[in-house]
Amino acid sequence: MALADLEKLARNEEGIASAIAVLRQYFGEKLKTGQALREQHAHTTTYIPSQLPDAVVFAETQEDVRETVRICADHRVPIIPFGTGTSLEGGVNAPAGGISIDLNGMDHIVAVHAEDLDVTVQPGVTRQALNDHLRDTGLFFPIDPGANASLGGMAATRASGTNAVRYGTMRDNVVSLTAVMPDASVVRTGGRARKSSAGYDLTRLIVGSEGTLGIITELTLRLYGIPEAMSAAIASFPDVESACNATILAMQSGIPMARIELMDTEGVAAVNAYSKLDMPEQPLLLLEFHGSPASVAEQAENFGAIAAECGGTGFEWVTKTEDRNRLWKARHDAYWAIKAAAPGKDAFPTDVCVPISRLAECVAETERDIKENRLYGPIIGHVGDGNFHASICLDPADADELARAEAVMERLAERALAMEGTCTGEHGVGQGKRRYMRIEHGTGAEVMAAIKRAIDPDNIMNPGKVVTLS
Amino acid sequence: MALADLEKLARNEEGIASAIAVLRQYFGEKLKTGQALREQHAHTTTYIPSQLPDAVVFAETQEDVRETVRICADHRVPIIPFGTGTSLEGGVNAPAGGISIDLNGMDHIVAVHAEDLDVTVQPGVTRQALNDHLRDTGLFFPIDPGANASLGGMAATRASGTNAVRYGTMRDNVVSLTAVMPDASVVRTGGRARKSSAGYDLTRLIVGSEGTLGIITELTLRLYGIPEAMSAAIASFPDVESACNATILAMQSGIPMARIELMDTEGVAAVNAYSKLDMPEQPLLLLEFHGSPASVAEQAENFGAIAAECGGTGFEWVTKTEDRNRLWKARHDAYWAIKAAAPGKDAFPTDVCVPISRLAECVAETERDIKENRLYGPIIGHVGDGNFHASICLDPADADELARAEAVMERLAERALAMEGTCTGEHGVGQGKRRYMRIEHGTGAEVMAAIKRAIDPDNIMNPGKVVTLS
Repeated sequence: MALADLEKLARNEEGIASAIAVLRQYFGEKLKTGQALREQHAHTTTYIPSQLPDAVVFAETQEDVRETVRICADHRVPIIPFGTGTSLEGGVNAPAGGISIDLNGMDHIVAVHAEDLDVTVQPGVTRQALNDHLRDTGLFFPIDPGANASLGGMAATRASGTNAVRYGTMRDNVVSLTAVMPDASVVRTGGRARKSSAGYDLTRLIVGSEGTLGIITELTLRLYGIPEAMSAAIASFPDVESACNATILAMQSGIPMARIELMDTEGVAAVNAYSKLDMPEQPLLLLEFHGSPASVAEQAENFGAIAAECGGTGFEWVTKTEDRNRLWKARHDAYWAIKAAAPGKDAFPTDVCVPISRLAECVAETERDIKENRLYGPIIGHVGDGNFHASICLDPADADELARAEAVMERLAERALAMEGTCTGEHGVGQGKRRYMRIEHGTGAEVMAAIKRAIDPDNIMNPGKVVTLS
Repeated sequence: MALADLEKLARNEEGIASAIAVLRQYFGEKLKTGQALREQHAHTTTYIPSQLPDAVVFAETQEDVRETVRICADHRVPIIPFGTGTSLEGGVNAPAGGISIDLNGMDHIVAVHAEDLDVTVQPGVTRQALNDHLRDTGLFFPIDPGANASLGGMAATRASGTNAVRYGTMRDNVVSLTAVMPDASVVRTGGRARKSSAGYDLTRLIVGSEGTLGIITELTLRLYGIPEAMSAAIASFPDVESACNATILAMQSGIPMARIELMDTEGVAAVNAYSKLDMPEQPLLLLEFHGSPASVAEQAENFGAIAAECGGTGFEWVTKTEDRNRLWKARHDAYWAIKAAAPGKDAFPTDVCVPISRLAECVAETERDIKENRLYGPIIGHVGDGNFHASICLDPADADELARAEAVMERLAERALAMEGTCTGEHGVGQGKRRYMRIEHGTGAEVMAAIKRAIDPDNIMNPGKVVTLS
């Protein structure tokens, strides 16, 4: 792989062998070294080749995590946290081998505080499991990255998704967390107060650190009352620019949209074919409104007027749950729709985020670049945030196609950075985006490296990801 | 002072003298050493005695900041950033002397990006100056800590205020920032994308670090469309608990309140006397709603129903700007009202934040403690966040009164921590709250110290604040 920044990390063979022996004494059957299991723990939806850990520990308690960290620290052996394996940039690869620590067994919902609108969970709880658990409380956790990811993994990658425009990202919705640090000490980054000015924001430092500073063993998350009413709407636009203009006007006028998603023409075509819909094959905005019945009606009406002003057509507003679900299911199935449209190929979603004023230009240039390079890669975006995905389809065995796709992805990241954006809005850095960190952050990359060295001097926590130490 | 944690820091006399000499060559008249000016730059609204810097540099450009940092770093001399001097916990004191860097001259509004709902400013711009500048754009910056503080200072202390319940705090509203680090390098923590998963969150690390990691020289802030309609409401309650219960129900039901403030009985009495109002002298909630005219009407109606259910009386809803302003002016004048109610004394506001389910209990115990210690200290709170202030009035020359007040403040911080809260919701740590950091953060305090050492190994950036290094 020319472009994935796979750091040349030496394997500490002796340390790994010793650590596994000691871990086996402690964990017995909860330590596995079978090939298939190790492969599964390095596999993610990425074009980056897998790099297997040497063993997998199935942690069930915080003490299991501490013991694993203690042993790995003693032997200077890498430790790579693993949730549901839905990371997109090689986050669970083991470039220097080491121990994958599977946190799915830590799946308790510790406490729901309905009055405080918060919940404390273990890291292996998935967002769907949490929302199932909350169903009878009238509360929900909104962050939805698409995959049914673990909440620990979502915090570690600072995930977001379709409704970040209204509810924020994991950055905004983790109240505090507990992490096992590289020296096996346990840090609780805060209580349950909604806000605090008490010192450095360790919560936000660990959220998004992708397991390179510590392993999250508990999270307190914000909850929200389930809105009394929800409705969905769609509108088609002659071009991406008109759709973006409508979004900008709607944001400026303060319509509190819960979701506003853009699909480009190719995306709509793929979704139509897959979900048996007949939406006009031109750029589409798909929206959701939350509030009281009167408020969602007003929001939809106001948005409809803005859409019309910007050249939108076919504005349709649906309030019935089944209609709303049908539309949003089509959106959520977009990944599968895109894969189905490119038989024999895999879809590799990449993501960037730019100021919304630059979004139309960024999408248009990216569409052109994809086409000019004879690739298929529909664009779908969380347009209220300026965040979009190009899901480039390719056969990883086709070296030429892969090289063209990588070049397109690289230009996309550079394009976003040139527009005052970021190389990743929500997927994270992992190995895949590491090479952009110095371009994006300049001297800030050195500050990150200084923090990593101060907290993890032996570089045992998910080495080869996010920061570059050399 | 028994309780203020004034670290024993040695003065580097030789370094300070040399640094001042070199700074004078560079800055000429922009460097001042007069007693009155130095006193003014150490003075804040706090019971902590002033500790003067040895000189004040008036910076006008980022290059001025860099040059000051370079010279101070060369001579290992402390550098203390200064905005409007409204910090409450000794944040601008110079416990080891050194150079106060006054950033009020850096007051340019660099760029308004109306389409992206963001603005880039220099740190000396005050929140009122920003909102005056934005007036014709239809946009505003919501964070309002009461004082007309500088935006750099607000970011440095992670300030918030009355409308954080709707718009968040400085944590949520700084998109990115530029800081001069202790080695005089310049770090830009991000672009203008709304969200990013690209590495450690340096923005949130520097927000709230109170000048101990770097000096903010530019900020990009989120803006919001001015709501089409705003209205205010008040309701009285038989006790603090009923008022808190109404708040909890309103939050759970998703009423998007822009402000919800609690005044205890003594607070209402002080405000009545000062602002010539005749509100019932019992616990009061004061609210503001933002939205469309129909939406604010619905919000007020829904809140009115909840208030009645919780025993609230005298619910009054006002939409006229002058009525709204009259109510909110009374709230904003509360500090002066409290001072006026205690002639010959100063008011020292302290703040804590707890989960809202514990708020009533925390307020009631604090009221009792204040009374039992023969002190006067009305309580006013940002109740939607669980954040409240006790403004204890005292004569600092009265050693006995001061000791009783300090003991009350200490018990308040400990009470908040015991309730899973924080020792400061929005005022910051400075010197005044430093002794609670280990209690609140445990091993997290060591992580903060490790970060401080890694970034500022010579401890020149606002030493003696926030973190304890020994």
